[in-house]
Amino acid sequence: MSTNTQVRLAARPRGVPGDDVWSVTTESVPEPGEGELLLRTLYVSLDPAMRGWMNEGRSYIPPVEVGAVMRAAVVARVEVSRHDQFPIGALVSATSGVQEYAVSDGKDVLLLREGAVPAPAYLGTLGMPGLTAYFGLLDVGQLREGETLVVSGAAGATGSVVGQIAGLKGCRVIGIAGGPDKCRHVVEDLGFDVCVDYKSDTFAADLRAATPDRVDVYFDNVGGEVLDAVLLRLARGARVVVCGAISQYNADGQMRGPANYLQLLINRASMRGFVVFDYAQRYGEALTEMAGWLAEGKLVSREHVLTGSVRDFPAALRALFAGENTGKLVLKVGE
Amino acid sequence: MSTNTQVRLAARPRGVPGDDVWSVTTESVPEPGEGELLLRTLYVSLDPAMRGWMNEGRSYIPPVEVGAVMRAAVVARVEVSRHDQFPIGALVSATSGVQEYAVSDGKDVLLLREGAVPAPAYLGTLGMPGLTAYFGLLDVGQLREGETLVVSGAAGATGSVVGQIAGLKGCRVIGIAGGPDKCRHVVEDLGFDVCVDYKSDTFAADLRAATPDRVDVYFDNVGGEVLDAVLLRLARGARVVVCGAISQYNADGQMRGPANYLQLLINRASMRGFVVFDYAQRYGEALTEMAGWLAEGKLVSREHVLTGSVRDFPAALRALFAGENTGKLVLKVGE
Repeated sequence: MSTNTQVRLAARPRGVPGDDVWSVTTESVPEPGEGELLLRTLYVSLDPAMRGWMNEGRSYIPPVEVGAVMRAAVVARVEVSRHDQFPIGALVSATSGVQEYAVSDGKDVLLLREGAVPAPAYLGTLGMPGLTAYFGLLDVGQLREGETLVVSGAAGATGSVVGQIAGLKGCRVIGIAGGPDKCRHVVEDLGFDVCVDYKSDTFAADLRAATPDRVDVYFDNVGGEVLDAVLLRLARGARVVVCGAISQYNADGQMRGPANYLQLLINRASMRGFVVFDYAQRYGEALTEMAGWLAEGKLVSREHVLTGSVRDFPAALRALFAGENTGKLVLKVGE
Repeated sequence: MSTNTQVRLAARPRGVPGDDVWSVTTESVPEPGEGELLLRTLYVSLDPAMRGWMNEGRSYIPPVEVGAVMRAAVVARVEVSRHDQFPIGALVSATSGVQEYAVSDGKDVLLLREGAVPAPAYLGTLGMPGLTAYFGLLDVGQLREGETLVVSGAAGATGSVVGQIAGLKGCRVIGIAGGPDKCRHVVEDLGFDVCVDYKSDTFAADLRAATPDRVDVYFDNVGGEVLDAVLLRLARGARVVVCGAISQYNADGQMRGPANYLQLLINRASMRGFVVFDYAQRYGEALTEMAGWLAEGKLVSREHVLTGSVRDFPAALRALFAGENTGKLVLKVGE
C-alpha cells in the first residue's frame, strides 16, 4: 500500500475515446481525516453513461473535468475508517472513480451485504443499472400486465433486468440484441419470449414478426436505427422510455434523431426521458424487491468480469461501446 | 346548377404536390336520396395535415385513395334537404371534399350559427385547428399558470390559437414564425409576449434570449430545425406536444428526426403525440369556451381568404406549404 494509480480524463474525446484522452497518474495513497474512510477499489463499473460525462456542456450531472479522475461507480473494501458507520473490512459501493484508492466522507458510500450475491452484482442488477430498469419500466413506462414490452440492449446491464421484470409482471417480452450469442442468452438464460438480432439483414421483418400486437412499452437503450424501427411498431397509447442511446454516444458529427417520431402522433404515443437519481428516495424499496427476486431465482443477474488493473479501464470502456459484453461489464482490479 | 367540378388525387405525390398529382373532373350535380342533403361548398379549408392524407400507409386516418375526391373540411350551404335536422339554406360545416357540391347523409355535418363570426372561422378557430390548439395545449400539454409556452407556426391556424389561450391562462407566450410581418402580427394583433423569426440568422440566439427561464411546454407544428432548437431550451419536466411537422411533410427523402431528443432525458421531459378526433366527445365544451372568448374580444381569429374556384385548390395548397398565409388559409369558392 504505497501508491495510488489513477486514470484521469486528459482531453475531451471525439468519437470512441482512444488512449489519447486518458492519462495515468500515481500519487501516494491518501490518508483519511476525522470522519473519513479510505476505500480500496475491487471492481470498477463500466457504464454507457460514462461517455456523456466526458462531454462538455449542460447535462443531468456535471461533466468530468479535464484533469480529474474519471468518475465511476465501484465496489470497494474499507481499508481505513475514521467514520462511525463504516467498519474496517466492510464491503461498500461508492462513486469514487477509476483509481486504486480513494478517501471518502461516506456520503455516497453504501454498505453491502457480503455473500448474498457476487460483489459485481452491486454494480449491475442491485446497482444503478437495475434501479434504472426498475423505475424506468414501472414508473416511467407504466407497464401493465398483459402488455407487450420491447427493450433494446437486452443483453446489457439494464436491458436484461427490464425484460425480466416485464416477464414477472405478466407481459410479452421481446429483446433486441446484437448477434446470435447474445440473443440466445436473452431467451435461454433470461427467459425473454423472443430476441431479435439488430445486426441481422432481416431485422425489420423479424421485429414485425415478433410484435403481431405491436408494442405498448419500448425501453430504449440504444437510439439510432433500432429506435426508428421500433417506432414503426408502436401500439396506440404506447410509451417510449428514453433511457439512453449508446449507438449515438460516439457519433462524431450530428447525432441521428428518430426520423419516425411522428409515429408518436399517429399512435397517440409518448416518449419520456428520465434520470434514475430522481428516484433516490425509493431505491430501498426497489432493491429490496429485486434482491428478493434474485434470492428466489426469479431474476438472473449476469456480470461480465474483466480482470486487470485500473490501467485497463480505457480498453474496457471501448469493449463496452463495441458491445463485447454480455451482462453487466465490470473491471476487477483487486481481491 | 348543372355540373359539379371536383378535384381528385390523381397520383401519390413526392415532395410538394405539383399540378400533376391532381385531376379536375366534372359530373352532374348529384341528387340526394331520402335522409340525405345536397351541400353547396362555400369555403374549402387548407390544412397541413392534408399532405399526410395523400400518402399511402397506416396513419391516424385512411389515406385519400388515388382517383378519389380530395378530402377537405368545408363550410357549405344546404341546397336541397331530405333530412330532418338540416333545413334548406342552413350554413353547415362538413368534410365533403374539394368539390362544388356534395351529397351527405348528415353524419359529419354540423349546423353553424350564422353571423356570429365570419363563416371561415368555422374552419379555423372554431373548427379543427382551434380544437387542436385547445386540447393539445390544455389536455396533452397540461399547461399551468405561470409557465412558459413556446409554439411554432405561431401565425398559423392552430399556433395562433395556442398562444392566445396560453396568454389567457396567465403564461409567458413565445411564438415562432417565419419573417418580420408574421412576427409583428403575432405580437401586435395576437398579443404574444415575443415572437422569434426562424428565418433569421440569429434564430438560435433570439430563442435563447426569449426563454431565460427555459420552456415548460412546446407546442410543435413544424418539426425539423425549429424543433431541435427548442429541445435545447427545455426546462426540467417540460412537455413537448407533437401536433405536426409541416417543415418535413414534403421531404423527398428521409424525414429529419429531432437530433436533440436526448434533451428529453436530461430534462426529464416528455414528447407526446395526439389526434384531435379522440376528443370528439368534448368538442362542445371547447367550442363554447372559445366562442365566448371570441365574443368578449379575448381571442382574435384571423382568416386568410383566397377567392376563386375549387380548381384553385392545388395552388392554394402550395401557398400553405410555402408559408404564404397569415392565419387560417381558406379558399372561397361560393357566395
